[in-house]
Amino acid sequence: MPAVDGRPYSPGLEGVLAGETSIALVDGQNGRLLYRGYPIVELVRNSTYAQVAELLWTGEWPSEAHLPTAPLSGAVLTALRALPNESSPMDALRTAVSAWGASARLSWPPTPDQARDVTALAPSALAAFARLRQGLEPVDPDPDLELAAGFLYQLTGETPDEASARALDAYFIVGAEHGFNASTFTARVITSTRSDLASAVAGAIGALKGPLHGGAPSEVVSQLHEIGSVEHAERWMRDAIARGERLMGFGHRVYRAYDPRAAALREVAEGMAGMADWLKMAVAVEDIALRLFEELKPDRVIKTNVEYYAAAVLQGVGLPPDLFPSTFALARHAGWTAHCMEQAGANRLIRPDVRYVGPPERPLPGVAAAV
Amino acid sequence: MPAVDGRPYSPGLEGVLAGETSIALVDGQNGRLLYRGYPIVELVRNSTYAQVAELLWTGEWPSEAHLPTAPLSGAVLTALRALPNESSPMDALRTAVSAWGASARLSWPPTPDQARDVTALAPSALAAFARLRQGLEPVDPDPDLELAAGFLYQLTGETPDEASARALDAYFIVGAEHGFNASTFTARVITSTRSDLASAVAGAIGALKGPLHGGAPSEVVSQLHEIGSVEHAERWMRDAIARGERLMGFGHRVYRAYDPRAAALREVAEGMAGMADWLKMAVAVEDIALRLFEELKPDRVIKTNVEYYAAAVLQGVGLPPDLFPSTFALARHAGWTAHCMEQAGANRLIRPDVRYVGPPERPLPGVAAAV
Repeated sequence: MPAVDGRPYSPGLEGVLAGETSIALVDGQNGRLLYRGYPIVELVRNSTYAQVAELLWTGEWPSEAHLPTAPLSGAVLTALRALPNESSPMDALRTAVSAWGASARLSWPPTPDQARDVTALAPSALAAFARLRQGLEPVDPDPDLELAAGFLYQLTGETPDEASARALDAYFIVGAEHGFNASTFTARVITSTRSDLASAVAGAIGALKGPLHGGAPSEVVSQLHEIGSVEHAERWMRDAIARGERLMGFGHRVYRAYDPRAAALREVAEGMAGMADWLKMAVAVEDIALRLFEELKPDRVIKTNVEYYAAAVLQGVGLPPDLFPSTFALARHAGWTAHCMEQAGANRLIRPDVRYVGPPERPLPGVAAAV
Repeated sequence: MPAVDGRPYSPGLEGVLAGETSIALVDGQNGRLLYRGYPIVELVRNSTYAQVAELLWTGEWPSEAHLPTAPLSGAVLTALRALPNESSPMDALRTAVSAWGASARLSWPPTPDQARDVTALAPSALAAFARLRQGLEPVDPDPDLELAAGFLYQLTGETPDEASARALDAYFIVGAEHGFNASTFTARVITSTRSDLASAVAGAIGALKGPLHGGAPSEVVSQLHEIGSVEHAERWMRDAIARGERLMGFGHRVYRAYDPRAAALREVAEGMAGMADWLKMAVAVEDIALRLFEELKPDRVIKTNVEYYAAAVLQGVGLPPDLFPSTFALARHAGWTAHCMEQAGANRLIRPDVRYVGPPERPLPGVAAAV
């Protein structure tokens, strides 16, 4: 790493260890993702998002857990009603969390109860906005449904089928946490000033909104629509690769091996009776894509990333593509809030140095120099 | 700096250069603060906040500039009306900026026009909330007033006197920018994902809310109230120092010499006919405090910091102490938004590494090991 005046210099902070965490291990080299030591594929096979969230918050594995969506306060609902229909769902979610924090007057330090509250509120808020912008009234939470199923219920007004609820819960599990990404780091910087949990989560939502972080899973959907069918897939992808285009849903900055989140979601999708034909096409297209990469790019490791199956699941359960990034944000609430608590527990203000490259000291134009 | 696996390890990122900036130089060793090369004391003497904001945004010194407060959209005003009266003013401001962003649908990259819009909106939003919580109706902006004067007008419904307008404008200038502090860094991390300006500013407000960053200028006011008069000041402070207590408004993490922002504000206060007696007392008490530090702590450099005169000015212009942190946030909008533009102009996703110290890979309790 280069140094300036004896200080490590790293715009982007790549390669700088900005702290310690016990929450997750992202092991890109070996394609491993552990939450509190437990492999992601095991968690998807054997647990629910409610259990995973408790695990992330407390560090303890709960043999059972229940996390329904929460009702919206008047302040949150009024703020959502006032937004234009064309508002970005991420902006609506950020505003809802901010209004919630303004009403909740959160104490320091952040607690698991606060984390539960905001994680349970967010799906209700997003679902309410999604209905309001269509001219529909919000649907109250069903306290018997778990978070992912409850979100679908509040979106549609209908209790989701078992397969959709299970698929979205699995998606929520793989999206719950991923180390020091930009949004989680944002939440920790905000918490490091001893600010409250709502400020941290609102900041994190804002960071996840950026396409360099939140990604573009809806582009995977567009791509699969363009491909149209399994029979056309090989020709379409060969042409795209020949034109030097990037196939959406493949390749990852960190994972050099197969993205374990994609593997876990594929397993859920394959094991599921009654899932959309659309998802079957996604599985078949993936096999063809990986074969083509091996043939055409033998010197590079290009594997399926989580966005590919995220798109497949979110489309499969019937979400409109413009809700994909905000639904990702719902899932990530568990991880963000776990990081806020971890940061608060061993706190140190996060404040890097900066290299000044601007003009040297100079007098104001037209002003006589000071005496 | 310690290293782990060959990577620099710095929780808090102290001593790590996280990027480059041309906006401000914070030179604590020599007590210098430059905006685009111009010393803060020169700017306070010879310019207005409107000019300083343009300078920060564009890098060019404008011979004149006009920045009135902006009217609130329906979405912002409705969101503010829905908040409980007991909400923190920082939470209200954060929610207003978030609702504004949801309505404005901001394009990438952030622009000076966007920066002007949010900087002009924020004082109107804070003033509206401050009135609503007292059961008063918001006051529309007066387009002839500059930002600081316009804020006071929208708070009180009365055009402020010249001295108050000038003092608060000076406060806005010294608060406009201060390098890579935690809130500015938050804004840059959020911008680095290619997220929008409102997301970045909402996150920055959340970070500034924390007492480790936004500080506690209202405690300076309480302290001066306890001291009561210049005659009692020496005895009171000697006793406090003897008890090992910290005097509020003195000492700074960065500035080893006199904080140039405090010097600039003191100069404004001293030159001002018609300022509150209260401010005169602050000047006299400061002199006594500095003499006592030299006598009682000769081996340490303890100088007046910006909070001391910030409190004096904010109290002097009649702001209630619970609006001090959010008024600081209004001033810092110029700096935050300048940093968003600078970050966007040479962007690189900000994403540090983290040291994993959690449990090693382990099977889920009660689940048979995977085959």
